[in-house]
Amino acid sequence: MDELQAIVQKKIDGFCRKNGDERILQPVNYILQLGGKRVRPLLTLLAADLFSDEIDDAVYPAIAMEIFHNFTLMHDDIMDNAPLRRGKPTVHEHWNRDVAILSGDAMLIQAYQLIIKTKVSCISEVVETFNTTALEVCQGQQMDMDFQSRSDVTLDEYIEMIRLKTSVLLGGSMKIGAIVTGAKLDDQKAIYDFAIALGLSFQLWDDYLDTFGDTQKTGKQVGGDILANKKTFLMLEALRLANPEQRAFLETQFMSTEHSEEKIRKVKELFHSLKIDEALKSKVEDYFQLALQSLNQVSVSSNRKEKIKALALSLHHRDH
Amino acid sequence: MDELQAIVQKKIDGFCRKNGDERILQPVNYILQLGGKRVRPLLTLLAADLFSDEIDDAVYPAIAMEIFHNFTLMHDDIMDNAPLRRGKPTVHEHWNRDVAILSGDAMLIQAYQLIIKTKVSCISEVVETFNTTALEVCQGQQMDMDFQSRSDVTLDEYIEMIRLKTSVLLGGSMKIGAIVTGAKLDDQKAIYDFAIALGLSFQLWDDYLDTFGDTQKTGKQVGGDILANKKTFLMLEALRLANPEQRAFLETQFMSTEHSEEKIRKVKELFHSLKIDEALKSKVEDYFQLALQSLNQVSVSSNRKEKIKALALSLHHRDH
Repeated sequence: MDELQAIVQKKIDGFCRKNGDERILQPVNYILQLGGKRVRPLLTLLAADLFSDEIDDAVYPAIAMEIFHNFTLMHDDIMDNAPLRRGKPTVHEHWNRDVAILSGDAMLIQAYQLIIKTKVSCISEVVETFNTTALEVCQGQQMDMDFQSRSDVTLDEYIEMIRLKTSVLLGGSMKIGAIVTGAKLDDQKAIYDFAIALGLSFQLWDDYLDTFGDTQKTGKQVGGDILANKKTFLMLEALRLANPEQRAFLETQFMSTEHSEEKIRKVKELFHSLKIDEALKSKVEDYFQLALQSLNQVSVSSNRKEKIKALALSLHHRDH
Repeated sequence: MDELQAIVQKKIDGFCRKNGDERILQPVNYILQLGGKRVRPLLTLLAADLFSDEIDDAVYPAIAMEIFHNFTLMHDDIMDNAPLRRGKPTVHEHWNRDVAILSGDAMLIQAYQLIIKTKVSCISEVVETFNTTALEVCQGQQMDMDFQSRSDVTLDEYIEMIRLKTSVLLGGSMKIGAIVTGAKLDDQKAIYDFAIALGLSFQLWDDYLDTFGDTQKTGKQVGGDILANKKTFLMLEALRLANPEQRAFLETQFMSTEHSEEKIRKVKELFHSLKIDEALKSKVEDYFQLALQSLNQVSVSSNRKEKIKALALSLHHRDH
């Protein structure tokens, strides 16, 4: 795994060096050098490694996925008015809005420059998967923005939003790794489904940690979603299960922009009393098991699956 | 020519119909339906028509160029804070900034969905040309933005900016039409150079019309560039040729945000007295002749070139 990480990091460093100090590409290098776990390119390489001992063909597509992911971060940060990304000023803060728009555009084009380096024999399939995925990620962001002004979001819609915004890029990353190593269609589908379910489990666990995690470990203020009145699994389920009195309480909290420990404490208490923390934990577990089932369906020997299983478990049991 | 126009319009209508009323694609349909001359897809088809009687392979790439062009308009309008586009509210005015960013992103991805439909045998070449062109267009927009805060822009830099911002997309459109019809490398280069020179001639003539055109014919307020203190060919040459007194006058005008007929009249008078209008006209003519020379170098019979020549002449002698 460390070896795959090293391949990814080396390629990203090389990519940034090639960008040099070209003005429009400076923000591209900046956001890439903020770090990150490089989960997406790692998933591409892990998927390739599942089907072949030779994973070289997956390296360019893997890096393309990371460049695309960071492009979405650059533009999402504008839309979210986010001041910080990994503790550093976001691109639109460090430069300005127009730079973040334009360098983001350049970054999306660069993702295509990399994906097109896929070997000719599977280029159509890879680029089609990439296109579909990219468009779905944009649709996920659109849904997320729409939710902010809606009061009738359902849990199914929320799951669909995180599927589009987060999971499909994990799914696309793995599917592309499978395509370039010549995996059968059934196996492409199984590994895609694995990543989708893993992504949902991951994102829902993120929701859990945001409210019930340990600041010491997550490094974030616990209760951030509550203060921001975000419509996460916890809040949507609470609204659904609440009695009229509890619902009135939640709706009052929802209206307020109060930033207090008191608000967090009261809302968490309500989540507890409605057992929504348990419901969320069980949902996380359901999706995780679903992921493992899909992984089981991949028609390679189980020892080839060890690395992916290890990554999945490390994400599943994380406390940060 | 009308036939090619009809092919383009029909395909764009079909594209919009397929988008349906998917939320993120509504602004895509909106900007495409504002109309326009469809110059870029027309150039792709004309280039294909130069080398082959069969231009079907050029249709998808042609539409991709138009989608890409409109994507740049959607994002540029945000950066320019433009309220109107072809007399209608811009996307960020009609919806909002975030919609214009996100739907623009989706539109760029859709351009790739179309370009990837190019026949497999030349897909790498076509997509590489598309990528290079797309990145250069972004660089042109970056230069244009940088110029606004710089006082030392040279004429060469200005020409380079309009080459990147306008010409390379015309060049790329024609080159791609040449590639898909199997044109030789020399011919690809000649038709690319033709479009670059034509684009420079076209854009510089635009500068001329903005200041010396006839409102009745252009439909725009004459002197818009002067009021906006834009660093066009006329202004840059005036600054270069002015005596100290004239330079001081220009710099005062430049500082002011005064919107008066008086300002326009005085600056035009200075342009006249320095003979910059004549210098610009002669530059427009130079690039037009350069374009024709490149067209002459294309190794096909001269009657195949008639349509392109007719289009070039119609752009050259236009008064609007």
